[in-house]
Amino acid sequence: MAQSHSSSVNYFGSVNKVVFEGKASTNPLAFKYYNPQEVIGGKTMKEHLRFSIAYWHTFTADGTDVFGAATMQRPWDHYKGMDLARARVEAAFEMFEKLDAPFFAFHDRDIAPEGSTLKETNQNLDIIVGMIKDYMRDSNVKLLWNTANMFTNPRFVHGAATSCNADVFAYAAAQVKKGLETAKELGAENYVFWGGREGYETLLNTDLKFELDNLARFMHMAVDYAKEIEYTGQFLIEPKPKEPTTHQYDTDAATTIAFLKQYGLDNHFKLNLEANHATLAGHTFEHELRMARVHGLLGSVDANQGHPLLGWDTDEFPTDLYSTTLAMYEILQNGGLGSGGLNFDAKVRRSSFEPDDLVYAHIAGMDAFARGLKVAHKLIEDRVFEDVIQHRYRSFTEGIGLEITEGRANFHTLEQYALNNKTIKNESGRQERLKAILNQYILEV
Amino acid sequence: MAQSHSSSVNYFGSVNKVVFEGKASTNPLAFKYYNPQEVIGGKTMKEHLRFSIAYWHTFTADGTDVFGAATMQRPWDHYKGMDLARARVEAAFEMFEKLDAPFFAFHDRDIAPEGSTLKETNQNLDIIVGMIKDYMRDSNVKLLWNTANMFTNPRFVHGAATSCNADVFAYAAAQVKKGLETAKELGAENYVFWGGREGYETLLNTDLKFELDNLARFMHMAVDYAKEIEYTGQFLIEPKPKEPTTHQYDTDAATTIAFLKQYGLDNHFKLNLEANHATLAGHTFEHELRMARVHGLLGSVDANQGHPLLGWDTDEFPTDLYSTTLAMYEILQNGGLGSGGLNFDAKVRRSSFEPDDLVYAHIAGMDAFARGLKVAHKLIEDRVFEDVIQHRYRSFTEGIGLEITEGRANFHTLEQYALNNKTIKNESGRQERLKAILNQYILEV
Amino acid sequence: MAQSHSSSVNYFGSVNKVVFEGKASTNPLAFKYYNPQEVIGGKTMKEHLRFSIAYWHTFTADGTDVFGAATMQRPWDHYKGMDLARARVEAAFEMFEKLDAPFFAFHDRDIAPEGSTLKETNQNLDIIVGMIKDYMRDSNVKLLWNTANMFTNPRFVHGAATSCNADVFAYAAAQVKKGLETAKELGAENYVFWGGREGYETLLNTDLKFELDNLARFMHMAVDYAKEIEYTGQFLIEPKPKEPTTHQYDTDAATTIAFLKQYGLDNHFKLNLEANHATLAGHTFEHELRMARVHGLLGSVDANQGHPLLGWDTDEFPTDLYSTTLAMYEILQNGGLGSGGLNFDAKVRRSSFEPDDLVYAHIAGMDAFARGLKVAHKLIEDRVFEDVIQHRYRSFTEGIGLEITEGRANFHTLEQYALNNKTIKNESGRQERLKAILNQYILEV
Amino acid sequence: MAQSHSSSVNYFGSVNKVVFEGKASTNPLAFKYYNPQEVIGGKTMKEHLRFSIAYWHTFTADGTDVFGAATMQRPWDHYKGMDLARARVEAAFEMFEKLDAPFFAFHDRDIAPEGSTLKETNQNLDIIVGMIKDYMRDSNVKLLWNTANMFTNPRFVHGAATSCNADVFAYAAAQVKKGLETAKELGAENYVFWGGREGYETLLNTDLKFELDNLARFMHMAVDYAKEIEYTGQFLIEPKPKEPTTHQYDTDAATTIAFLKQYGLDNHFKLNLEANHATLAGHTFEHELRMARVHGLLGSVDANQGHPLLGWDTDEFPTDLYSTTLAMYEILQNGGLGSGGLNFDAKVRRSSFEPDDLVYAHIAGMDAFARGLKVAHKLIEDRVFEDVIQHRYRSFTEGIGLEITEGRANFHTLEQYALNNKTIKNESGRQERLKAILNQYILEV
Repeated sequence: MAQSHSSSVNYFGSVNKVVFEGKASTNPLAFKYYNPQEVIGGKTMKEHLRFSIAYWHTFTADGTDVFGAATMQRPWDHYKGMDLARARVEAAFEMFEKLDAPFFAFHDRDIAPEGSTLKETNQNLDIIVGMIKDYMRDSNVKLLWNTANMFTNPRFVHGAATSCNADVFAYAAAQVKKGLETAKELGAENYVFWGGREGYETLLNTDLKFELDNLARFMHMAVDYAKEIEYTGQFLIEPKPKEPTTHQYDTDAATTIAFLKQYGLDNHFKLNLEANHATLAGHTFEHELRMARVHGLLGSVDANQGHPLLGWDTDEFPTDLYSTTLAMYEILQNGGLGSGGLNFDAKVRRSSFEPDDLVYAHIAGMDAFARGLKVAHKLIEDRVFEDVIQHRYRSFTEGIGLEITEGRANFHTLEQYALNNKTIKNESGRQERLKAILNQYILEV
Repeated sequence: MAQSHSSSVNYFGSVNKVVFEGKASTNPLAFKYYNPQEVIGGKTMKEHLRFSIAYWHTFTADGTDVFGAATMQRPWDHYKGMDLARARVEAAFEMFEKLDAPFFAFHDRDIAPEGSTLKETNQNLDIIVGMIKDYMRDSNVKLLWNTANMFTNPRFVHGAATSCNADVFAYAAAQVKKGLETAKELGAENYVFWGGREGYETLLNTDLKFELDNLARFMHMAVDYAKEIEYTGQFLIEPKPKEPTTHQYDTDAATTIAFLKQYGLDNHFKLNLEANHATLAGHTFEHELRMARVHGLLGSVDANQGHPLLGWDTDEFPTDLYSTTLAMYEILQNGGLGSGGLNFDAKVRRSSFEPDDLVYAHIAGMDAFARGLKVAHKLIEDRVFEDVIQHRYRSFTEGIGLEITEGRANFHTLEQYALNNKTIKNESGRQERLKAILNQYILEV
Repeated sequence: MAQSHSSSVNYFGSVNKVVFEGKASTNPLAFKYYNPQEVIGGKTMKEHLRFSIAYWHTFTADGTDVFGAATMQRPWDHYKGMDLARARVEAAFEMFEKLDAPFFAFHDRDIAPEGSTLKETNQNLDIIVGMIKDYMRDSNVKLLWNTANMFTNPRFVHGAATSCNADVFAYAAAQVKKGLETAKELGAENYVFWGGREGYETLLNTDLKFELDNLARFMHMAVDYAKEIEYTGQFLIEPKPKEPTTHQYDTDAATTIAFLKQYGLDNHFKLNLEANHATLAGHTFEHELRMARVHGLLGSVDANQGHPLLGWDTDEFPTDLYSTTLAMYEILQNGGLGSGGLNFDAKVRRSSFEPDDLVYAHIAGMDAFARGLKVAHKLIEDRVFEDVIQHRYRSFTEGIGLEITEGRANFHTLEQYALNNKTIKNESGRQERLKAILNQYILEV
Repeated sequence: MAQSHSSSVNYFGSVNKVVFEGKASTNPLAFKYYNPQEVIGGKTMKEHLRFSIAYWHTFTADGTDVFGAATMQRPWDHYKGMDLARARVEAAFEMFEKLDAPFFAFHDRDIAPEGSTLKETNQNLDIIVGMIKDYMRDSNVKLLWNTANMFTNPRFVHGAATSCNADVFAYAAAQVKKGLETAKELGAENYVFWGGREGYETLLNTDLKFELDNLARFMHMAVDYAKEIEYTGQFLIEPKPKEPTTHQYDTDAATTIAFLKQYGLDNHFKLNLEANHATLAGHTFEHELRMARVHGLLGSVDANQGHPLLGWDTDEFPTDLYSTTLAMYEILQNGGLGSGGLNFDAKVRRSSFEPDDLVYAHIAGMDAFARGLKVAHKLIEDRVFEDVIQHRYRSFTEGIGLEITEGRANFHTLEQYALNNKTIKNESGRQERLKAILNQYILEV
């Protein structure tokens, strides 16, 4: 099967390799802003953006929602079982190539079906991992990250590492062990933990402290095992406040940081931040990125967006230019994402069920981030916000302000200063003017 | 002035001392459930509940809202300036006595007006603090906590300890210095920090890292100064996610814990948790209490409730029996609140503008918490949730589960266990049955 | 098959007929508050409450959620296809009997599987409808309402009556035609329309006006057809603001009333109001009931509750006593629900997957509504709110107020009155006192 | 006073007349996109956009928020009483001229202070209305609308037309009577009703039906009086769901339409729709505009935006280009706003307290709407969405679809069609592709 992949199969027959045609193009299957080889600040767009395609949304998901059955029309739908798994790999690498995507990401159960036992499940996984490895050898595509799906199977109904059932903890451990081996095998640059069932439905039946302790025990075991097998990819935790459970422990960036520090894990993990998870937690995407950045914990990004008026994870493709600009601003200020990337944890709408929609959607997202990159780069190059901030906080670079920041002030000296000080004069924060400038940059870069 | 307070003034003339009349009473000015001397589990209700009256909502606030002018009718309204401040003290102690409230709490600016200089402001404060001290000497009322209002005055428009203006930082330091001295003078059992402007309006003009660093510097100075003056009350931080600013740094319990740990402050502070702030942050009240409790940081409570469909801090009096029951459950499990208490950070509705409404409202809240206390105590006494939880997590008390919790398991042993294990069997979480039991306890205790 | 149903099958073997044991009972399989024969204000509880069991949540749903596979353990799970459909009927009537539920409700596709053609689908339906008719003949259970599921099948991806595809409109018409025939056949007291896909995903591709027109055309055809076949049950529309679509046309009570009036349908429809849909629309449940009531359009109720902090339809069993009390208050003030009832459109949590949880959950809901009924009845009997309201609005029963309500005032007379009037004096709205009284009634009735 | 206004006063001395300098300008006091005389589709931008400056936010508001005192620095702050009122008129017309704003809007109490009696209040109003009339005579500025502030004064604590107090109803009538006379005097193109207190705090003390009836009586009296005095401006109702009250009757467009139809007022009123009120009600701005448009009730627009993560009315200046584009799309499709306009019901942030911020903010909003106009015009000119929609709904232009829309189909013919029809084939809704196109238009027009 593997040897035939480059020639015989063609799932997206109507789509050629997507190329950059520029902003005036009316070709829906061309990039208008994403020009992979264009150099921005010394690096190509491709190097900056490190786009990754999410296997689950793109090759596995079928459009089911809470009130409706599958709608997605996929050219590989007629396959079953392991044949379906193989067909998806073929389709995936065809799309990676057509979109020139440098990375992809998957959960273990996206790529291979569960068997009737864990052993059989692992065998299925081995077969597909082997196939993927062959495909990767023949392409430039790399694995941004893999992870373990510990939320779909009913065994995880009460959690995985935080289940009240020790058998489930053990099963989850076995699954992540395999996941780390897969990560090493495929050279995954990161390994992700998303605790989709690590939380509670109701406090009435929950020992929250015990569950947090167990979650930490699990993470330490994972760290130990990675060290043992010399897997050196970055560990990432992906926060989300709720859904599917009522409350998830890795609620947002700050909560996850508190957890990592509480349990001595902060040297081993960074954060994988998703735009839609940020808004579900009541934060802007850029807030979550900033919080992680200032703690030195910005690892990677799940690039999507939510609907501001809907209370669930809509996982839309990112098209909001404000959001992509401010996200890229944080990423550039972070010196890039290191081993992380921009993974499109985004799904076409249930009503966008034709295969080409997958391509349109990725183009929409890649173009939006490419524009965001250019705008953010120019904003930084022109020191638009930096100059504002430098000016705004200038009182801390001299006199009493400098004493404060240098640790030479105390309540006595500050009180004396305040008692003798003239009436305090503040300056406007100029938010409206800054927003007008942001619009001008977005439109004119 | 002090010598006259017990006799000559009578602001709530229509209200006698509120007494317990029991559940059948139709007297709106009597307690139906709060019986201060009733013993629950070895302590009186009064000892358990440690009710505190919030000076600002009760004696200072005037019913202004964003779209409307003052509505409150207060018998001391005809006074001005320092006379008004004095009259409020008289009214306050009259109400403390009539409600038999053991504690109260205030911001510096609630009790005394600002002068034209900081010096004059402090002099005003000294006068009223002295008057309060006299009144306290003649009563059994104690100061649960005081705090500094660093959000109303326009000087704090960009924050206090997190202002971009060093003069404001200095002013805030002087204000908290005075606050700590006041705390010592009046024997405040706690000192509270609520960072109502410690946050940002927009990230576009904000150096978030610098502001967090400054906030920590400020807190360390406060710790140092308390040590210097030998003020031994408990320091408390009160989280709130937003309002008045777009984002506040002490967002919720977990975020505040992360901050305290990041800056080495976790041994010096506990949390003062408010129900309405919890829901604004997307959490239940009991979740925030639980999070603080399991971190050993549950300090005190701002007892109120929000409207579940309104997106701002409505600060309603707590009447929801589910919320008071589950809050008291956490507090009892915590072994009480220590030096903390239940402070009614709650305001009568703008349309409840008559003086008696203040009494009705406190009765409503005190009765709701008294009932909550009794229900929670009985739930614990009967081990309702404890037995459920013990049974639910029992797999961790033997075999592989015990190996996990005792640190003897690793990914190898767990994988072996999982590979050899039979099909995993989970048990129902029984949420609906537990909710029915909770209803029965609330109704029948 | 029908003749055997009363004897041979026993899906809920561990459950006997649930009986009233009173508030002190600790039997989880007994009613504590719902005493069917207890007379409240001249009618039995059973007559007042008209409980209905939702076929879909109870007998069809499997616990799937957006991130997880089926968890529910159902004793009929081993059947397939039409055998499964038959087994569910048997299980349903067993549960109706054990819970002594007077009504049930279903979507067409809950009770019988789709065939490969519409004709075959209808044949499947006929078989099960016949079986249900037999069972109903042997029991006292009635059909509260039936409806057509026009949201699950992918053909409805763009809506049913509001689809952009005329073939779908035709299909939906055929389906509702059959539904009305089923309603007549089984004596359904109501026929419900829930437009789960009647809305839009994005306005960018939507002709909103055309879709609303088509929705009205469809409704008129349904009215005409019911008349033709002499089906005299009440037509009901069930509002919901969003989910599964981004925006649904029957957003809330007021929006649906506007639609009915706009298209001349208000004489033919009433509303079926759901608690969780109310809160998703930003309203309390009692608000929606009140709005429908004052328009004479309160038809029936979907009895459930949402989680106040979650942004999707959680469809929890109703246990909140405030909500059940205030709902029953509106229903009693309406003189009951007429042909409507309290249908438990509620599902056990995904983690409450054992068969007995279905029984616990219904007991929880029935007890909560029984208590709510008693409290609401006593509140009305004691004229608690009526007296407050009569007093509050008394100025409209004389003088200028009476002129206003009798239509004798105009801007001239009112201005003259206002110019000559003394300072206006308002009275407190007494919200806190009323909430305290409500608590006392809930606890002490 | 009037004769001196064009020369002697200069409140915004640092600001010259703001002119269009184009997209490359870095002058913060110049328009980059708003070119008043630029012709778009046969009309100038100025004619299309009909910008209006909100008197209250711009000349009256002081930056107070729920937790903070006034911050705004205004050059007219040193005046008091009627002198302050006069100074604000001077400042207002100076700004109208400098921004070349064609319209303004006010509440009665924005322009003149209340006196100690209604008579005195009306006299104050007469003086300032006279002054404004003089200024209008000397300028090209027109009054878009005026309205009555019936929410700030404590007399309106329980509502105005929906107060439980008949005296308040009478007072409100007198106030609106005067408002209509003012409208006629100044040639207001519209008269607005915003029912900021027309709602309830709690249903426990509210006769909702009576209040709705009274609201309708009030509106009919207003219609009658306008007819009597031959005021021919358009009547507008402005929906808002909540804040300041818990629930407001004019909740959203659909609710208001239901009210107007219920009480036979729909021929006399149109809607004044605000972006931030839309989102508080759970709708997009464009949804509300569309709903009003398809009912023929789109009257005018309050041009602002809310913060998507904050639950109160932030009234920010509109800078989101998606929102301004889609709003202008609806307005162009409506054939413009007729006598309505784009009124900036927007306030500078409390932290943007310098006078120039008022100018920056209006420039930001005017530029954002100018760009939105150009993008929307080009989208319509290119038939981007029209062609998509025409194609999407094409099945209704022939065969069974045409029968449906022409009223020739019924459930019999549709069932026959459905039974004989082949498998239904839907087409993708193409949301992601449409969003990519929208981005391209926004960036490249």
